[in-house]
Amino acid sequence: MADPFPLPEPMRLALSLAQAAARAGEVPIGAVVARDGKVIAMGENRNRRDKDPTAHAEIVAIRAACAALGQERLTDCDLWVTLEPCPMCAGAIAHARIARLYYGAADPKGGGVDHGARVFAQPQCHHRPQLFPGLGEEASARLLRGFFAERR
Amino acid sequence: MADPFPLPEPMRLALSLAQAAARAGEVPIGAVVARDGKVIAMGENRNRRDKDPTAHAEIVAIRAACAALGQERLTDCDLWVTLEPCPMCAGAIAHARIARLYYGAADPKGGGVDHGARVFAQPQCHHRPQLFPGLGEEASARLLRGFFAERR
Repeated sequence: MADPFPLPEPMRLALSLAQAAARAGEVPIGAVVARDGKVIAMGENRNRRDKDPTAHAEIVAIRAACAALGQERLTDCDLWVTLEPCPMCAGAIAHARIARLYYGAADPKGGGVDHGARVFAQPQCHHRPQLFPGLGEEASARLLRGFFAERR
Repeated sequence: MADPFPLPEPMRLALSLAQAAARAGEVPIGAVVARDGKVIAMGENRNRRDKDPTAHAEIVAIRAACAALGQERLTDCDLWVTLEPCPMCAGAIAHARIARLYYGAADPKGGGVDHGARVFAQPQCHHRPQLFPGLGEEASARLLRGFFAERR
């Protein structure tokens, strides 16, 4: 029987990027920048591989999208990511002028959108994307739980 | 007459990096990563030149320091920056495990340390650097005022 609620293609792609990250020993988080439904760039967590504390999936995808489009701002682009962004990534999303942010699982321990720093809710935030949380959250949370359970 | 309160060398270097950024048409902000007083890496704002919304001085310096040291974490390193970091950069500073953060001018409109998101004050923040605000704030604010006055 076909899935009655299939996930949008960019979120399915983000989940497959998260799986690839896990296979490489990275915390399984994936991100996709899309415009009008067309994928512009992809990112997976690369902190360990690149020895770069800023190489979260969202930052990797945003930098790749800017390079692909040759522009500093991603106006009219959407970001799809498997986990609620941290404050660093939420700040980058605001700087990049991302139009819509779709994210999977909530992250009460490290998130900066609906938790803690609540970057987009601050008067200092110059741009707020439209927020669409919860898409693919079960698959995302399952990947993260499996990853950390294996390492315990 | 010699300056009775000379700025520490890393902050003077950060200010000269901010001046270099202004000459390149970038918002004048500079940053230096140092360890035991030795400069490990430098950064200036490169958003326009690199068409990269994440290329703030702090991120540029942190990525360069990690590349120079071949490690993901900058434990025992200090960051010197001419302006209060935004939430993106404060998040990166926490991820990088920077030991001490020295910053010049406060940034009530965009800062994320003493304003708005207050990233380091959140329970979701996994690492808080020691904070030393105000060093070189007059020179930093003067550079920023001059830059924006010319563009008005």
